[in-house]
Amino acid sequence: MLITSPHNPRIKQVIALRDRKDRERSGLMRVEGYEELSLALDSGVRPHTLFFCPALWRTPEQAQLLLRMRALGTETLEVSPRVFEKLAYRDHPDGWVATVPLIETRLAALRLGATPLLLIAESVEKPGNLGAMLRTADAAGVDAVIAADPLTDWGNPNIVRASKGALFSVPVAAATSAEVLTWLAERAIPVIATTPQASLRYTDANLRGPVAIAVGEEKHGLSRRWLDAAAQQVRIPMVGRVNSLNVATAAALLIYEALRQRGVS
Amino acid sequence: MLITSPHNPRIKQVIALRDRKDRERSGLMRVEGYEELSLALDSGVRPHTLFFCPALWRTPEQAQLLLRMRALGTETLEVSPRVFEKLAYRDHPDGWVATVPLIETRLAALRLGATPLLLIAESVEKPGNLGAMLRTADAAGVDAVIAADPLTDWGNPNIVRASKGALFSVPVAAATSAEVLTWLAERAIPVIATTPQASLRYTDANLRGPVAIAVGEEKHGLSRRWLDAAAQQVRIPMVGRVNSLNVATAAALLIYEALRQRGVS
Repeated sequence: MLITSPHNPRIKQVIALRDRKDRERSGLMRVEGYEELSLALDSGVRPHTLFFCPALWRTPEQAQLLLRMRALGTETLEVSPRVFEKLAYRDHPDGWVATVPLIETRLAALRLGATPLLLIAESVEKPGNLGAMLRTADAAGVDAVIAADPLTDWGNPNIVRASKGALFSVPVAAATSAEVLTWLAERAIPVIATTPQASLRYTDANLRGPVAIAVGEEKHGLSRRWLDAAAQQVRIPMVGRVNSLNVATAAALLIYEALRQRGVS
Repeated sequence: MLITSPHNPRIKQVIALRDRKDRERSGLMRVEGYEELSLALDSGVRPHTLFFCPALWRTPEQAQLLLRMRALGTETLEVSPRVFEKLAYRDHPDGWVATVPLIETRLAALRLGATPLLLIAESVEKPGNLGAMLRTADAAGVDAVIAADPLTDWGNPNIVRASKGALFSVPVAAATSAEVLTWLAERAIPVIATTPQASLRYTDANLRGPVAIAVGEEKHGLSRRWLDAAAQQVRIPMVGRVNSLNVATAAALLIYEALRQRGVS
């Protein structure tokens, strides 16, 4: 069956997943793009419904992914190029959009290694920054990225996109700052707060043990609550005229400094 | 005089600066946004023409910037909100767009410190990545960012935007790879090439002396030419499923590792 009308109710449903409310009501989120869907599948995601448009595929070999999803029991619906353009969020859609179950984001579901390395993002606003953090967290093997007092949900399609699929390979959680701080305290994981006001350089802090690296909102940084709760406050040396480093860059520097100190190769 | 028609030739001129050809023909580029313009002025830029719309200003105090620009001899033209929306590239314009002279990008114009720290970006495609590199270069006090075999020009308005004004505080250059390599060799500045294929970790390379850190195009990385010309090839440890780190993140890790080794605080 080929869907040729943009008014088809299935098409309307998947377009609606742009809104957080619709994601929460349906328990579904969207993944767009061949690369991102491949990574999601590699990470064990079982898509609910695939909307595909072979005329837009970059290569005919991508058909393999369709077979792979059918083998997983995914419903697959072919749509016309005109309808696919409606469905897609991207400027140059590649013929692949699927709905997948909302990812697990409860703190209680996180499983930590022997020496946890966590990234806490307090009220970070831009999906692009959260996606960039996930990409770095994936590369560095961070145990989890936790959104404290989040301003967006992890199912935001712009996060999926910016993360290049790392949203599905890196464990994530979302909770209030109070809940996250209690959870960390119960596990005796000290917080390292990143703030330009600190006197200690990040490279002089001991990041070898269990540690939760905290970064704050783009404009104003970490709140008083997180600064007060931190075992140590650290700063990144800055000599320039522009106010501060991008928050995802700051997170990457801290995470990789922990890896350096731990001798990860 | 208030400009109320989007067909006004001055308005058409500034809209045309979206195109590289128009930038090269006129010798002008655009800067949009109060913050970015303030930073440009702080860095010594003397704008050519300001287009402003007080109804869109975030605070009335921003009027100070108008006086500051008039004192510099900038022509100032007030435009109606409707015309400003045409003029602006951003979704929520803030009432500030100016044309400024194209920045200097000749290698010969660069002035280096005693122990140069340079960033080379070979054929990096996305303005967002080049802007992010400039922001990091500004924070870290890098001597210059050099685009080798560039796919875009430094006057691209998306670079200005993503750099948050750092384009005006960090010296930049653009040239062919052959020209950049000759220029570096003449100054005896060794190239450190960042590539996942290297065996040496970036934290084990000596970055204390003069050094040009090279990163490559988003998808395929550095070309053979740069890899062969490098004094050392280094890699960033990666354990994840997603192919690689973002190129601007990789650049930030290398630059800040150099700062750490040099004891910058």
